[in-house]
Amino acid sequence: MTEPAFRILARDPSSPARAAILTTSHGAIETPCFLPVGTRGAVKGVEFDRLEEWGCRAILSNTYHLMARPGREILRSAGGLHAFLGWTRAILTDSGGFQVMSLSSRRRITEEGVEFRTPEDGTKNFLSPELAMELQSEFGVDIAMALDVCPPFPAERREVEEACRVSAAWAVRSRESWRGAGLLFGIVQGGTHEDLRRESARRTVDLAFDGHAIGGVAVGEPKDSIRAVTAFTAPLLPEEKPRYLMGVGTPADLLASVRSGVDLFDCVLPTRHGRMGHAYTRTGEVTIKHHRFREDLSPLDAECSCPVCRRHSRAYLRHLFVVGDFSAPMLLSIHNVFFYLDWMKRIRRAIGEGSLAALAAPPEGNIPEGA
Amino acid sequence: MTEPAFRILARDPSSPARAAILTTSHGAIETPCFLPVGTRGAVKGVEFDRLEEWGCRAILSNTYHLMARPGREILRSAGGLHAFLGWTRAILTDSGGFQVMSLSSRRRITEEGVEFRTPEDGTKNFLSPELAMELQSEFGVDIAMALDVCPPFPAERREVEEACRVSAAWAVRSRESWRGAGLLFGIVQGGTHEDLRRESARRTVDLAFDGHAIGGVAVGEPKDSIRAVTAFTAPLLPEEKPRYLMGVGTPADLLASVRSGVDLFDCVLPTRHGRMGHAYTRTGEVTIKHHRFREDLSPLDAECSCPVCRRHSRAYLRHLFVVGDFSAPMLLSIHNVFFYLDWMKRIRRAIGEGSLAALAAPPEGNIPEGA
Repeated sequence: MTEPAFRILARDPSSPARAAILTTSHGAIETPCFLPVGTRGAVKGVEFDRLEEWGCRAILSNTYHLMARPGREILRSAGGLHAFLGWTRAILTDSGGFQVMSLSSRRRITEEGVEFRTPEDGTKNFLSPELAMELQSEFGVDIAMALDVCPPFPAERREVEEACRVSAAWAVRSRESWRGAGLLFGIVQGGTHEDLRRESARRTVDLAFDGHAIGGVAVGEPKDSIRAVTAFTAPLLPEEKPRYLMGVGTPADLLASVRSGVDLFDCVLPTRHGRMGHAYTRTGEVTIKHHRFREDLSPLDAECSCPVCRRHSRAYLRHLFVVGDFSAPMLLSIHNVFFYLDWMKRIRRAIGEGSLAALAAPPEGNIPEGA
Repeated sequence: MTEPAFRILARDPSSPARAAILTTSHGAIETPCFLPVGTRGAVKGVEFDRLEEWGCRAILSNTYHLMARPGREILRSAGGLHAFLGWTRAILTDSGGFQVMSLSSRRRITEEGVEFRTPEDGTKNFLSPELAMELQSEFGVDIAMALDVCPPFPAERREVEEACRVSAAWAVRSRESWRGAGLLFGIVQGGTHEDLRRESARRTVDLAFDGHAIGGVAVGEPKDSIRAVTAFTAPLLPEEKPRYLMGVGTPADLLASVRSGVDLFDCVLPTRHGRMGHAYTRTGEVTIKHHRFREDLSPLDAECSCPVCRRHSRAYLRHLFVVGDFSAPMLLSIHNVFFYLDWMKRIRRAIGEGSLAALAAPPEGNIPEGA
């Protein structure tokens, strides 16, 4: 008998949270884990050297975007995604379900798959569960995702039902056609409807995936709703397999979801907000351009040991943002990604020590949407 | 008697090139040396940690820009420029002469100084030699520059003569008013006119500055002309003091100028061209977006040991540029600055070994102006 890929090391006495090791062919991932997002193959503004130095074990990339550019052939001739990126640790790829939604004005979903035009050059493309599996297998990813249909929020219940129906059929086809060396995760949909989530979880779990994702969250619904869906759905997923909450969230969201039993996360917030000038800190979110930081000679976060906080003040970073220096978004992205990875370390340590109940999340700020 | 700040360690038998140590209160600078440009206080796209790791001993910043933003008071309250930037090694600041030229539609030069409006917000400012000295002293820079008038190219001879006349007067006032702890360098002007250069050099040298700069080059004149002016002017400057060629140039320009006896350089090329997608390599300049790099799995430079070349291929970097990923200009800037610093190391080593004559510069490519 082979060792299971997912091995639970410690359980939190106060919640379903657990610390575990997820073994992949590109190294072990300690969970709960945050995967920095490299949609197109780079974690924007953060060198891979830094990620390694900080103990980052896995990044997320995107099948849909990689299929469009650089394209399948180049990835194949490079010898797979790891070789193409120059990243030797684990890679999880989303299959494209979320992108199908976000490009909804240009796509047509049929029973067979999804037809869409790439926004950049209008090229006609077609993605089916079989192709999504073939691509991820060819890319050589460590964790592949089944192809799903991710309904937006708000959506008619009928629309969510239909997305669940097609996702369930595609989950079967994804499972059956998967020939990759990596793990394959199924995705639970169902929007904010408990009965649909329950039904989707049941059908997904039946397919014996290597892990399960909670999809269709962080698509525009209120934050409370994301947390409620997560708290409701996570326990429906087998506890001996990893649970992955897609596209969520703030440091506080991550802690709340860990307490619901989630193991894996990805989110664009640390890099996207970093580029926009928002920094995550132990005391809340800092919008660095604000006039009040003009003469603030303290670091972004007084306890942070990231390369930015070890060296630079808020006043300096504000200055760089105000003058529009290219380094400004880079430095905030570096801090934010470090902060997220460090936050997950603190969460893992607290689970290991049985002290998770006492861990307080940073207060949530009021970063304006799209600011 | 105190040790001289500039100590020559080795001389090239084939040219006026020399290897030396320039001592500052923030560490010793091995020359010939390239100073990465941090006009507004950051070397765009390159972390200070990286610069330190690569042995960079000094950066350049700009009095004119720092005076405008963040402004004198913030730098004062931070405890000087080093503290504000979080950079503990040497800093050289240009005084503003070059910026006065590049903002020429908005400035008025009088005997007293230069009146200008900051392009960002139209604030009226005034810079005199005395104020330029006061600011650089207050900033606590290691090498300060006299305030000069830098005529553009092309310019009427009369205009260059007038710039020389005012620069000479301002040099006297700069020298007399300098109270800083750092070194003060005078600047030779004179455009492409040998007699004016000679006269400016004589008057500058008479003032017993700690070092001398060749200014007013790289202002639009042909490359051959830059090299000719440098070759002509450098020997007019005392050989026991450091010589600094302002704002030049390509790796080949740097080698040619070292062979004329120049010790210090700064240039925006590695960062600016990096952001535009141009990389410097041992085999010439690479415009990474070019279709021919689409499947090129080799690094930018096969012999380069920078963090980018150790990990990434041209195909990957091209892909990031094509999709407009924020990491793309960052990664090319990292490579280019490393390449420049490494190139100077190779030059210093060759001088030390007496083999400079045999050192070949990378071929110069055809990077289109403003591309």
